[in-house]
Amino acid sequence: MKLKVYADRLSQPSRAVIIFCKVNGIDFEEVLVNLAKGEHRSREFKEINPMGLVPAIVDGRFKLFESHAILKYIACGFPGIADHWYPADLFSRAKINSILDWHHSNLRRGSTTFVQNTVLAPQFGRPLNPQSASEAEKLLSSSLSDIESIWLKGNAKFLLGNPQPSIADLILVCEIMQFELLSEKDRERILEPHPKILQWVENVKHATNPHFEEVHLLLYRAKERFHSIQGKVSQSSSKL
Amino acid sequence: MKLKVYADRLSQPSRAVIIFCKVNGIDFEEVLVNLAKGEHRSREFKEINPMGLVPAIVDGRFKLFESHAILKYIACGFPGIADHWYPADLFSRAKINSILDWHHSNLRRGSTTFVQNTVLAPQFGRPLNPQSASEAEKLLSSSLSDIESIWLKGNAKFLLGNPQPSIADLILVCEIMQFELLSEKDRERILEPHPKILQWVENVKHATNPHFEEVHLLLYRAKERFHSIQGKVSQSSSKL
Repeated sequence: MKLKVYADRLSQPSRAVIIFCKVNGIDFEEVLVNLAKGEHRSREFKEINPMGLVPAIVDGRFKLFESHAILKYIACGFPGIADHWYPADLFSRAKINSILDWHHSNLRRGSTTFVQNTVLAPQFGRPLNPQSASEAEKLLSSSLSDIESIWLKGNAKFLLGNPQPSIADLILVCEIMQFELLSEKDRERILEPHPKILQWVENVKHATNPHFEEVHLLLYRAKERFHSIQGKVSQSSSKL
Repeated sequence: MKLKVYADRLSQPSRAVIIFCKVNGIDFEEVLVNLAKGEHRSREFKEINPMGLVPAIVDGRFKLFESHAILKYIACGFPGIADHWYPADLFSRAKINSILDWHHSNLRRGSTTFVQNTVLAPQFGRPLNPQSASEAEKLLSSSLSDIESIWLKGNAKFLLGNPQPSIADLILVCEIMQFELLSEKDRERILEPHPKILQWVENVKHATNPHFEEVHLLLYRAKERFHSIQGKVSQSSSKL
């Protein structure tokens, strides 16, 4: 039975898992769990992941959620996946685990809170919270600085100075891609002080294309939609 | 050269790493990084962990931070550690990774935010934030319910129904032990609806004693200190 990946491409960890499977030629079935329609809260999906979050996988009788755990499971359990994604070497693997653990309470927390409170909240019927957004931006910016100064030192192409990407590169870059949903002004203010981050995002895209861009198409379309709504809102408020 | 563990026993992930080393008879040196004195922000410690957080380890020339990554590194890299702590089996390991990943944005986030904003903030010169505390309590309570209904189903002694503890049991229970710092009223309100959690905490203590209690002594002493300060504050305010 084929590996099933329950995902919504508007979710950054969902995209990372889908890209990883595609780049590594894994025979899988992508099952859409539409977050905007609330399908992740359905009883049916909670049989797959009781936490009601994407991504989740079903591999035969085995069910798993949490994107980092999923990527590690696939990297270790499926044949033919290049070692650089999640090295068997104790020390290299430990360093990648460390970045992935750090990610949860730093880049991911800053990024999701900022994007929620500057763009997404109204889509889910919640108000924007400018104070949360401002605190999140501080965490986000310090996280980007830490990535540059600690893991992208010197002329590093990928995290830890590795010549090829790991699952940590993929997870973190998919998170940063979520900034596509921000206004141009917010996106530039956050990313422009970080030239190494911008170069690294390009390196990860290049190493995983054409899959990276193909899996991000839905995000690019959502970006156009949001920007067109924002444009209309600011036009109508300038007429007042 | 001995493994060095940089830690402060008032930090819950520090305690988990120290207990793990002691239970498994690892020859290590514990190096105190006193958080209350700000030693984690010193230039000297940032040479060990540039993020300025405990725990961190140095093993020969190898440096590592993030408690989950450290526990996995020790479990896989040191001889004689029983398999149940971090099973080599692909499926069992994936389930433990999933719990540990979930922990960051759920139990840990709820717990640290709640304890900070009901007890600790003034110790670090910051004001308490009742709204943050109230939001954190919701996350905390739903996290405890999720642990009970998903990972402690039936008569499970440890997470996932395992007969012996894993590193996930140790990390999560050390987090819950931080509630010792709360007022009795807060602690009871949060924990009493969760009898399975209370039993599971006892099971983990029992499986790791005498080390568990010995490593928690500093926390118990801090609890007495905080409760005595709180008592004085409420006495003096009742005289007003």
